Amino acid sequence: MTVLKNCSVGTFAKGLRAVGVIMAGGMGTRFWPLSQKEKPKQFLSLAGNSKSLIQLTVERVQAFIPEDGILVATGESLVEETLRHLPKAVVLAEPVGRNTAPCLGYAAVKVLNEVGDVPLVCLASDHVVDGVENLSRIYEEAAQIAAKEDVIITIGMKPVRPDTGLGYIQRGEQYAPAKSFAGHIYRVASFKEKPAFELARQYLASGEYYWNGGMFIVRPSVLLAALGKFMPEMAAVLEQIREAMCLADGSKQIKELFSSLQSISLDFAVCEKADNVLVMPGENFSWSDIGTWASWAEYVQTQFPQTEGNYGHQGSCFVQSENCAVLGKDRPVALVGVKDLVVVDSEHGILVCHREATQDVKFVVEHLAKLQRN
Amino acid sequence: MTVLKNCSVGTFAKGLRAVGVIMAGGMGTRFWPLSQKEKPKQFLSLAGNSKSLIQLTVERVQAFIPEDGILVATGESLVEETLRHLPKAVVLAEPVGRNTAPCLGYAAVKVLNEVGDVPLVCLASDHVVDGVENLSRIYEEAAQIAAKEDVIITIGMKPVRPDTGLGYIQRGEQYAPAKSFAGHIYRVASFKEKPAFELARQYLASGEYYWNGGMFIVRPSVLLAALGKFMPEMAAVLEQIREAMCLADGSKQIKELFSSLQSISLDFAVCEKADNVLVMPGENFSWSDIGTWASWAEYVQTQFPQTEGNYGHQGSCFVQSENCAVLGKDRPVALVGVKDLVVVDSEHGILVCHREATQDVKFVVEHLAKLQRN
Repeated sequence: MTVLKNCSVGTFAKGLRAVGVIMAGGMGTRFWPLSQKEKPKQFLSLAGNSKSLIQLTVERVQAFIPEDGILVATGESLVEETLRHLPKAVVLAEPVGRNTAPCLGYAAVKVLNEVGDVPLVCLASDHVVDGVENLSRIYEEAAQIAAKEDVIITIGMKPVRPDTGLGYIQRGEQYAPAKSFAGHIYRVASFKEKPAFELARQYLASGEYYWNGGMFIVRPSVLLAALGKFMPEMAAVLEQIREAMCLADGSKQIKELFSSLQSISLDFAVCEKADNVLVMPGENFSWSDIGTWASWAEYVQTQFPQTEGNYGHQGSCFVQSENCAVLGKDRPVALVGVKDLVVVDSEHGILVCHREATQDVKFVVEHLAKLQRN
Repeated sequence: MTVLKNCSVGTFAKGLRAVGVIMAGGMGTRFWPLSQKEKPKQFLSLAGNSKSLIQLTVERVQAFIPEDGILVATGESLVEETLRHLPKAVVLAEPVGRNTAPCLGYAAVKVLNEVGDVPLVCLASDHVVDGVENLSRIYEEAAQIAAKEDVIITIGMKPVRPDTGLGYIQRGEQYAPAKSFAGHIYRVASFKEKPAFELARQYLASGEYYWNGGMFIVRPSVLLAALGKFMPEMAAVLEQIREAMCLADGSKQIKELFSSLQSISLDFAVCEKADNVLVMPGENFSWSDIGTWASWAEYVQTQFPQTEGNYGHQGSCFVQSENCAVLGKDRPVALVGVKDLVVVDSEHGILVCHREATQDVKFVVEHLAKLQRN
């Protein structure tokens, strides 16, 4: 096992003007049979190439942040796997999962200690983007603004359907940054939880709402100040963690302190209350959080259209079949006379799932766990 | 490679009163991904247990014929695999496939040479039966009659549905065997090719028709006499083969002779014309030729009913799924939100097929062959 110096591995490059913070604590099993406890979604190659989602996430900021300018916050049990995917990154271990507010607060004090008060570009580790260069430019512009102004910038994805599986950001009045800026940027009027369909339809129609992709661009000092204002207890503990980080043997203490933090999202803890939160519209790229096998299928079918709406790896074979997506490796997978299926072949098992039932894959995981116990 | 003494391997037991003749020349690929050129259907375990279909076929006659009283006629390339399944059987190699008339004629001269004029119980190698003991008793009774009388006895399976995938046997007047016999036995009025649905329905309704399972019980001398009458050229060549079988170096000659024979079924060559063909009704057992993955699914679901009409091996898992059959080994196979599928997991590939499309599996084999060539 890698030795964790103060709960982290690796050191930051010198002279960084921004630090990427990748939130990679996810432990989901929605992607059985590919995802496993020791290899959750962010480490899978779900974007139609050989790279893992976390590697592709890092590539989105590499135009202006090198790999050793990346801090990956993840669970202790995932540190090894993270280093396999990002050998040069700095890996910060969370002793327990505590949602995004503690995770980003922890990252903020780490960066403040070791790099300085440079903008953090905070991203989920398991989303996909098509049109990366456009999103990268937005990140860079946001980082330039956040470097000079005490604001928390979110990126709002222009919605293309009334999705009920995502949170939304409502924009308010336009905001004029000090730095001359060609694009549009707005104050955030409100954050909305996953809406019912009718409401989602209204959000889409109004043109005032964006999908919340959980991206934040903010300086550590600004984030910690906001936490100090709205989550004083958390801010106090984070300050203690910051001090413990300077001790050679602080790691045990950090674990205890971090574990004591309240599990809460940054949206809920800070962004919904703070008045310095901005939203920068993300356009000219397509984004997906790939929440289920169904959204994976939709993504690959759109990115790599094949005949009859099917998508499959080399060696897959479709006979009288439509609108199916197959993910496998070497063995042939043949679909005959079927429709609307997602089929996944892996060493751990085979999934044959109707596209509208992919949320039930969790029952498979439960069932197999029960079988193993008996 | 096993050395073939006069195109055969093994020796018959002494004092046999009947010889089982298993026709195992099939080379089908309808059972991809399980069936392969070197391992066609008769060697697969499709009856819901670990035994291959050919092993189960032999078990049906073992009440009165030992394993070394069995002659398996198969292709040269399948001799090794046959011996793996039936180490004690006598294996007769067909240099080329020539349908059932040459196959059984070849077997007849072999038995006449090495055992004597005892009844042959001729069976296909790749069918399944539930209620084996009842069918075994019928074979034994038929063999007792065929031992004394110059008749060709077929077994007619009582039809349970208007199947258009099978040939039918129409019964004629009742026949009174010399040997006192409790059951019924009839002269054959006619053999019918696979009928259209409406005709099949009439056959079923009339009660006069039976499914033709390709089973014959007949003494070698009687079979060869019938061939002499209706296929004189074939009979003459078989006589030459019989002589060559007595030569230590006859194997090359036998190959040439056998290859020269006309490819034709025994039904067509002899049974439809001869007046000494009888049909013994087979009842109190269920029989299937398992012609496709669909009929395999129907068979296992009937034999091993599980909830929601699903059938699966240990480790298969059904969530919101109905009327599906899964054949696999160790890896979990999970079906979620699907209906009416046959799913097969093997080292050679994975098949996901709608039950009504299983006849299209041949296109998968063609497609993969094309992929390999390129």
